Amino acid sequence: MAYSKAQGTLVINAWNEMKDDAATFALKFFLRLFEIIPSATKRFSFLHDSSLPLEKNPKLKAHAMSVFVMTCEAATQLWKTGKISVGNTTFAKLAAAHVKAGITDVHFEVLKFALLETIKEAIPYMWSPEMKEAWSEAYDHLVAAIKSEM
Amino acid sequence: MAYSKAQGTLVINAWNEMKDDAATFALKFFLRLFEIIPSATKRFSFLHDSSLPLEKNPKLKAHAMSVFVMTCEAATQLWKTGKISVGNTTFAKLAAAHVKAGITDVHFEVLKFALLETIKEAIPYMWSPEMKEAWSEAYDHLVAAIKSEM
Repeated sequence: MAYSKAQGTLVINAWNEMKDDAATFALKFFLRLFEIIPSATKRFSFLHDSSLPLEKNPKLKAHAMSVFVMTCEAATQLWKTGKISVGNTTFAKLAAAHVKAGITDVHFEVLKFALLETIKEAIPYMWSPEMKEAWSEAYDHLVAAIKSEM
Repeated sequence: MAYSKAQGTLVINAWNEMKDDAATFALKFFLRLFEIIPSATKRFSFLHDSSLPLEKNPKLKAHAMSVFVMTCEAATQLWKTGKISVGNTTFAKLAAAHVKAGITDVHFEVLKFALLETIKEAIPYMWSPEMKEAWSEAYDHLVAAIKSEM
């Protein structure tokens, strides 16, 4: 099933609505993950080495933001080119980092749930089954691209 | 840290409030799990063999109810005797079934989150940090007993 322009537009509109506070939402996204799987904090080397509280850790903020932005970019690419491309090297590096961290399918599933819940809470007035599906599919394609290199 | 009478009482009071609708809450509890980890449905042999929708599956209802009830019983036992006992055979059987189903630590973590969210939504007027802690600890002890046989 092709990713439609309508789906791409939904994701971009949502992103435009969230982008001024994207850092806040990105952080909420990962704090939600850790609420559901507390042990996931152990998967991040930069959380071991830090005595900062989670919500102050700059590397966690950066990581959360990159997942958020990459999902959004994936939606645009899927609609415009039918595939995701960030350069094979990047996917290979992402895959290697996730293998090293012991990330499994379940982690990717819970992260997806956390992402969708975060967006739903950020922009409840824009939320719909179609919006959920548009973000879901973009995320699934992004994860599939990472997993194919794992 | 010993499980206190106050904690046992919190769990029992919550249970008394929920028990008339316990089957409904138990089902919501597992539907929440599947919302967060859709692939978890594959872990239940009785879901493969059935064409019934999840919410109508009698074996899922029974399984959800047993987790709910066992957590509640664990709280009572911990307060009264300081340990959980359902007979070693039962824990060994539970452990074997969970190993066979490929259940990992992450699944137990997400199930805990789903349990706490379900109770919070069932009885918001009784919810508190202490209530959360009382159910959390009972659940953790129950899971530790199962895992120790896995």
